[in-house]
Amino acid sequence: MPDTVLPGHGSGGKLMNDLIHDTIRETLGSESIQLDDSAILQLPGRQIAFTTDSYTITPIEFPGGNIGSLAVNGTVNDLAVMGAAPLYLSCSIILEEGLPLDELKRVLQSMRAAADYAGVSIVTGDTKVVPRGKGDKIYINTAGIGVFNSPPQRHDILPGDAIIINGFIGDHGTAVMAERNKLSFSKGLSSDCAPLNMLIRQVIQSYPESIRFMRDATRGGVASVLNEITKDRPFGAKLIENSLPVHDEVRGVSELLGIDPLYIANEGKVVIIADGKDAPAIVEEMKKVPEGKDSAIIGEITDDYTGSAYITTRVGGNRMLPLLIEEQLPRIC
Amino acid sequence: MPDTVLPGHGSGGKLMNDLIHDTIRETLGSESIQLDDSAILQLPGRQIAFTTDSYTITPIEFPGGNIGSLAVNGTVNDLAVMGAAPLYLSCSIILEEGLPLDELKRVLQSMRAAADYAGVSIVTGDTKVVPRGKGDKIYINTAGIGVFNSPPQRHDILPGDAIIINGFIGDHGTAVMAERNKLSFSKGLSSDCAPLNMLIRQVIQSYPESIRFMRDATRGGVASVLNEITKDRPFGAKLIENSLPVHDEVRGVSELLGIDPLYIANEGKVVIIADGKDAPAIVEEMKKVPEGKDSAIIGEITDDYTGSAYITTRVGGNRMLPLLIEEQLPRIC
Repeated sequence: MPDTVLPGHGSGGKLMNDLIHDTIRETLGSESIQLDDSAILQLPGRQIAFTTDSYTITPIEFPGGNIGSLAVNGTVNDLAVMGAAPLYLSCSIILEEGLPLDELKRVLQSMRAAADYAGVSIVTGDTKVVPRGKGDKIYINTAGIGVFNSPPQRHDILPGDAIIINGFIGDHGTAVMAERNKLSFSKGLSSDCAPLNMLIRQVIQSYPESIRFMRDATRGGVASVLNEITKDRPFGAKLIENSLPVHDEVRGVSELLGIDPLYIANEGKVVIIADGKDAPAIVEEMKKVPEGKDSAIIGEITDDYTGSAYITTRVGGNRMLPLLIEEQLPRIC
Repeated sequence: MPDTVLPGHGSGGKLMNDLIHDTIRETLGSESIQLDDSAILQLPGRQIAFTTDSYTITPIEFPGGNIGSLAVNGTVNDLAVMGAAPLYLSCSIILEEGLPLDELKRVLQSMRAAADYAGVSIVTGDTKVVPRGKGDKIYINTAGIGVFNSPPQRHDILPGDAIIINGFIGDHGTAVMAERNKLSFSKGLSSDCAPLNMLIRQVIQSYPESIRFMRDATRGGVASVLNEITKDRPFGAKLIENSLPVHDEVRGVSELLGIDPLYIANEGKVVIIADGKDAPAIVEEMKKVPEGKDSAIIGEITDDYTGSAYITTRVGGNRMLPLLIEEQLPRIC
């Protein structure tokens, strides 16, 4: 077997068959991946969540994960924040000719480990190969199906609701940028890439009526999530700077790069809008799950600055958090 | 609005929001695409088919279709050949910086038209942008969900079964290669890109017990499908050269390129293995549907050459059809 990706690995012939059987299925789980044109699945219910995401991150390996674990966790999280239990993933890979197969294997191994940890199965897939200079090592698409064991978690947001997050913000984007730019002082940085479904299940089971809205804060960070939920609505979203969990290393690198951690992508953080009176108890519940151990209330929904997100700074002023024209960190997911 | 894709079109900011709202959702169908992290879907049953495919074809526009119609039909067909009724598609797009937005719009319009014709809804999506030289205009992933109104069409294949195809072979790959290489004498060539779900529904409804196996003959062509079903099995698959529907233009171009039409990709052809005694009636049923008007019996399952595909040539000899090491036409889907 060759040790890099060849054009023929993407064809309908023996080379592709060998790659799919010996490398991809073997690693991702030959017991779960069905080889037919489609996987046949038996669902426990008739209401499902369906999502898709393509991952084009560079570099493909970074502290705390790689494009494989990212592709599993990112799609698991898009299902989980709807209140759905993620069950099945597809995996479609675009390989650039010349990619060392060892790198591919590490990525696939991470996908498998992430799927096992999150409790989802990869059931169907596809492989394409593009020539050198028409891709960038590997792009992965995962689509996902989840089922609803309780109704979708989407309710009206009201002033007085609390804004909760499950830990430190900005880790993923900062770690990827530091790795990409070989920043030597960034040793402590690591992506927060993690599945949120166990955490969210814990919250839903304990406080099924208290959750208004959940969203994972990926591209555009926490500030973009808050912009989305306040846009054209009769309330504002206020953050308290003193309450924001930000690692010192993230603060340092983001200051150096001139970037606000509130706009930096996370890959294991969920913004939860919840009934204000239940928020402290919800945070305690979240802390019981590994992915929620640093959970905190970071702000509230207000009657002020309707339609906007803003932050009350350490010195007591309010600073607006507008939707940015573009992300400052390209290709972080 | 700019007229080419910019890096910021892939970020979590306003530029991406505008692209998604004004161009993508508007064209693909704002009434069906849900804007949340996942689409919430109500299914008519609990057994589903789930599939995924990434499309990296070049050129992205070709006689008979473009990457958009291909991405819809290809995934619809992967569901249909299982015997499932395709219902929902996701659409994830990787755009190369610099792509003219007009080209993107044409692709999206074709996706929408193909989805409408096939009767499926695009319900969720994702957009990423990669820098110049890290992609090739546009790559599209579609994942699809179908439901089973009757059991999956997978039964034991037996000697005496007929091999049926719904029309001319090799059109897609030949048309794309001719377009790519600007072959001036190839005016009559056009891709067969089409959805197979209406055709297959007709067959299943009329002859539910007679179908053993169906597979769309894409990468690797008809020969690769027959290799797949005969591999390590106690029967062979025999084609009759005189019965094979091949357009003269396809024969001409494939001879020029030194390629056998049996190995050329199709995008609207299904190989059906069916009970031999019902095969003529099935072919008549197929001819009632536009996508089946040139249907024909092209061979049979035999006790000879077990584990192999072969063809009885015009002069009466048998020629083996081995699985190729690699596809001769790269990036045709």
